[in-house]
Amino acid sequence: MPSYTAPVKDLQFVLHDLLKVSESDIPGYAELEADFTSAVLEEAGKLTSEVLAPLNAVGDVEGCKLENGVVRTPAGFKAAFDQVREGGWTGLDMPEQYGGQGMPYVMGTAVGEMFSASNQAFTMYQGLTHGAASAILAHGSDAQKDMYLPKMVSCEWTGTMNLTEPHCGTDLGMMRTKAVPQDDGSYRISGQKIFISAGDHDMADNIIHLVLAKIPGGPEGIKGVSLFIVPKFLVNADGSLGARNGVSVGKIEEKMGIHGNSTCVMNYDEATGYLLGEAHKGMRAMFTMMNEARIGVGMQGMAQADVAFQNALAYAKDRLQGRDVTGVKNPDGPADPLIVHPDIRRSLMDQKSFVEGARAFMLWGALLIDRAHRNNDAAADGLISLMTPVIKGFLTDEGYDMTVKAQQVYGGHGYIEEWGMSQFTRDARIAMIYEGANGVQALDLVGRKLATDGGKHAMAFFEMVKTFIKENEGNEVLKADFLDPLKAASKDLQTAMMYFMQNGMKNPNNALSGSYDFMHLFGHVCLGLMWAQMAKAADEALQAGTEDVTFYQTKLATGRYYMARRLPATALHLARIHSGAETVMALEAANF
Amino acid sequence: MPSYTAPVKDLQFVLHDLLKVSESDIPGYAELEADFTSAVLEEAGKLTSEVLAPLNAVGDVEGCKLENGVVRTPAGFKAAFDQVREGGWTGLDMPEQYGGQGMPYVMGTAVGEMFSASNQAFTMYQGLTHGAASAILAHGSDAQKDMYLPKMVSCEWTGTMNLTEPHCGTDLGMMRTKAVPQDDGSYRISGQKIFISAGDHDMADNIIHLVLAKIPGGPEGIKGVSLFIVPKFLVNADGSLGARNGVSVGKIEEKMGIHGNSTCVMNYDEATGYLLGEAHKGMRAMFTMMNEARIGVGMQGMAQADVAFQNALAYAKDRLQGRDVTGVKNPDGPADPLIVHPDIRRSLMDQKSFVEGARAFMLWGALLIDRAHRNNDAAADGLISLMTPVIKGFLTDEGYDMTVKAQQVYGGHGYIEEWGMSQFTRDARIAMIYEGANGVQALDLVGRKLATDGGKHAMAFFEMVKTFIKENEGNEVLKADFLDPLKAASKDLQTAMMYFMQNGMKNPNNALSGSYDFMHLFGHVCLGLMWAQMAKAADEALQAGTEDVTFYQTKLATGRYYMARRLPATALHLARIHSGAETVMALEAANF
Repeated sequence: MPSYTAPVKDLQFVLHDLLKVSESDIPGYAELEADFTSAVLEEAGKLTSEVLAPLNAVGDVEGCKLENGVVRTPAGFKAAFDQVREGGWTGLDMPEQYGGQGMPYVMGTAVGEMFSASNQAFTMYQGLTHGAASAILAHGSDAQKDMYLPKMVSCEWTGTMNLTEPHCGTDLGMMRTKAVPQDDGSYRISGQKIFISAGDHDMADNIIHLVLAKIPGGPEGIKGVSLFIVPKFLVNADGSLGARNGVSVGKIEEKMGIHGNSTCVMNYDEATGYLLGEAHKGMRAMFTMMNEARIGVGMQGMAQADVAFQNALAYAKDRLQGRDVTGVKNPDGPADPLIVHPDIRRSLMDQKSFVEGARAFMLWGALLIDRAHRNNDAAADGLISLMTPVIKGFLTDEGYDMTVKAQQVYGGHGYIEEWGMSQFTRDARIAMIYEGANGVQALDLVGRKLATDGGKHAMAFFEMVKTFIKENEGNEVLKADFLDPLKAASKDLQTAMMYFMQNGMKNPNNALSGSYDFMHLFGHVCLGLMWAQMAKAADEALQAGTEDVTFYQTKLATGRYYMARRLPATALHLARIHSGAETVMALEAANF
Repeated sequence: MPSYTAPVKDLQFVLHDLLKVSESDIPGYAELEADFTSAVLEEAGKLTSEVLAPLNAVGDVEGCKLENGVVRTPAGFKAAFDQVREGGWTGLDMPEQYGGQGMPYVMGTAVGEMFSASNQAFTMYQGLTHGAASAILAHGSDAQKDMYLPKMVSCEWTGTMNLTEPHCGTDLGMMRTKAVPQDDGSYRISGQKIFISAGDHDMADNIIHLVLAKIPGGPEGIKGVSLFIVPKFLVNADGSLGARNGVSVGKIEEKMGIHGNSTCVMNYDEATGYLLGEAHKGMRAMFTMMNEARIGVGMQGMAQADVAFQNALAYAKDRLQGRDVTGVKNPDGPADPLIVHPDIRRSLMDQKSFVEGARAFMLWGALLIDRAHRNNDAAADGLISLMTPVIKGFLTDEGYDMTVKAQQVYGGHGYIEEWGMSQFTRDARIAMIYEGANGVQALDLVGRKLATDGGKHAMAFFEMVKTFIKENEGNEVLKADFLDPLKAASKDLQTAMMYFMQNGMKNPNNALSGSYDFMHLFGHVCLGLMWAQMAKAADEALQAGTEDVTFYQTKLATGRYYMARRLPATALHLARIHSGAETVMALEAANF
């Protein structure tokens, strides 16, 4: 049975050594002193490792069951959800006005990583609620906020996102769900939605569905889509629950993983709905949820990689098999532990250097979101908007690969469900798909985000990398091991962008054929930048005479691995991008 | 529900256009004329696509059940197995003397691909039997051959391989299963074996277990291991079945995939066993099975990739979503099919170019085995021995990745079990693990095979590549698109080998840290060579005025994709190899 240990020390390193949050000018950050964040993270660590992690396999084996129209969650989920609510974890970064704790998003992210790592399926119930509440917060009327937010912030009521229909996923313009206006200002919603995570369950008194639908007579396609609040139970003016609304569960899907989360087909049959935001501007409101959700999904990728890595590492230290070719390490045992073998090391270092780099990337992204929201900083907003598809696509692809590598360390036991490694892989697989499949993320990045505001956010990113390299060129610890590889990787990224500019005009397929590689190229440069910055922070701590020499030296060594072994992937991605659309598009569809 | 179409045309292309089997000097190849192989492949195609493929999901959902000590296979398996037996498919490449059809291994491989692709879990019952029969054929006494082979060739009795114990997988020297000699020349076998595929089931009258065990008093470690024949039911002298032997099923493992195959814990309790081959030389005999099995597992990787690709392609042509950015392709529909999108193309071309390249690689490998066995050709034997870990490791890693890509094409539906794409991924996952985890394959390649016979087999491979390039340099169709990239990739491989020679002496970890990358580097060069040779064959057919212009042009276009987009991975693998052991081994185990 796998276990989970909350990475409090490493999160503290990123928050304080790297991001220096308490010295930041972002409102609310001054309070994030090391003692305070440590206390929060330790508490979250206890809850996630002791309560949620042991339920992870339970959720996988039991799954959710639809009984007489009601979804039953796995044994123990309800009690655990009560604990999460009681601890105030559901509203950590929500406004105090609605019962939240008002902490910055960066803290929500640090804590969220632990929740996702310990039990992704469970955590989705509150994750979806958080997304739905954010959309209401951003686009709802005061009356709507007052009616729904206090209960959603506390997760007494949970939320969902309803986008997909059987015939349309990415291409939402084709949706058929209808919203017919009523005299009282409400709408009658009818249609079928699929893949609705946390669509129904037995852990909350009410479920607030956010549903995309078309008001008849509105514009064609995606421009005619509006967003509606559709509660499972109608809410009376005094906040008490009224009649059951016309929404029901068609079925629960049998999935590859995240069995503990109920993925429902939802049928809306003249359900009462309330317009959220403006009519026909539903996508704008939905994107509030979606951008947050995409970053959260990126986090799931790195979180599953972390818990899988933790268990692979423990197994590699424990399992005796074969001998170190350079000399026996465990002479009193029948064999040496797996970790002596270079190829096992390679795998573990791949995992470790990814997880720690990705953690820094996530938290830096969260800081940019705080800066955008709390300082109204347009540059930060542009940069995180540019990087959102990278966070989602790159971290989930790589995160999944890392779970596969962790599983591989277990040999045959990795394939046996009892050992738990298969679940990490199966659960991590969904993150590459939902909230926009990763190919769509790459399209968003290359087809839209790169060129936003005349490409100035990409240029700002390059400038940041360049400045960092320039400022630290005299540092011998950084120069050859970190700055030179970062410079080369960043040059590959710029060359790729130049190629798109020069050749995408002639034929957009020249850019789109390289979009996936570009997303990965960008991701590697981001992690390379993170590692260079973390190396600097580690070096500073060592220079300052830290007592924890081993931690900081390990950080440097792990970074050197990433720069030497992982970052060179940028050249391969560039080579593929340079080959353009010709070989990709050569075949007629019929000739495949 | 996915479907499977046997790739008869492409197999015929590899057998006849590429390998020109019927013109070969290998005994038995003259009979492999195009009409004959086509008839065999068409028949196998019908059986696999119409009978086995529809049972694939059944096996996944039902799995195997242990009821009162007896394993029940999924509904339909037994009847299908009868059909396979009646068709004579189980002994296709087995000697006629024992009831087989005596065809070359290359035909067994071509047919075997279809079986594995249509239903891997089902096919393993006969696959394990084939391996066990091969070991008896190679190492058994005449009496043993006469007693077991006729029934095993027909699969009236099936076979198993028993290596792993709970505490030892790769490191078999630690095994504890004991074989105590009896006065009658038999042995009493006691111990527990795990991960025994097809360990028990209800589809055959008897099961012939091949079991590794130690004879007390023999040499320590791996040199004291012997191989035994342990029938489920003892066989009387007249061939009739006698008493139940002391072997029983402890449990069936719950696995990530291949649910239709019973993976058993087998308990041997003073079971009667018969020495197969010499005492203490069990590993030699086991390797007869294992080498065959490793090549068969490589085939499983490419086969799962093929069936997954076929379904992803069909979905991409069918599913309407979004519009072609270069101009609407389906003006009468609400959207264009997925296949218009460059990133979907990229994924499909990755899959197609891998599957076709791997198919050629597999069949070329099978031809080398035939040449080694039927012509007693030591050079062919050395070459296929060198490439066996590449076939196993590279084709299963890449094959798995391709199933993940195919699943991704389905978007959300790829995660829902009902659509069947998840099963391909889950089933393909095991191939990276069993018959020696892929890290062990890389170790075998770099630590053993490369240096075998003074490295002459690797040199022969390079010589072959060089000769091919030289002989075809005047061909303008091949030069820039195929020969130049192949030359560069082959140079990367030679450079890597040189690095190992120069640095592995000082510290073997310098070589072993790069072993996994070397295995993939080698695999890419092999597929690059296959594509260059297939391009030549396609060009010749076009020059000769073939009527099937589209097929051959498509072959050329698919090859160009591989050379432009996939083969450049060799440079990345070389860069990682060049970074040596330093960053890989930098951390103390305790500091991870």
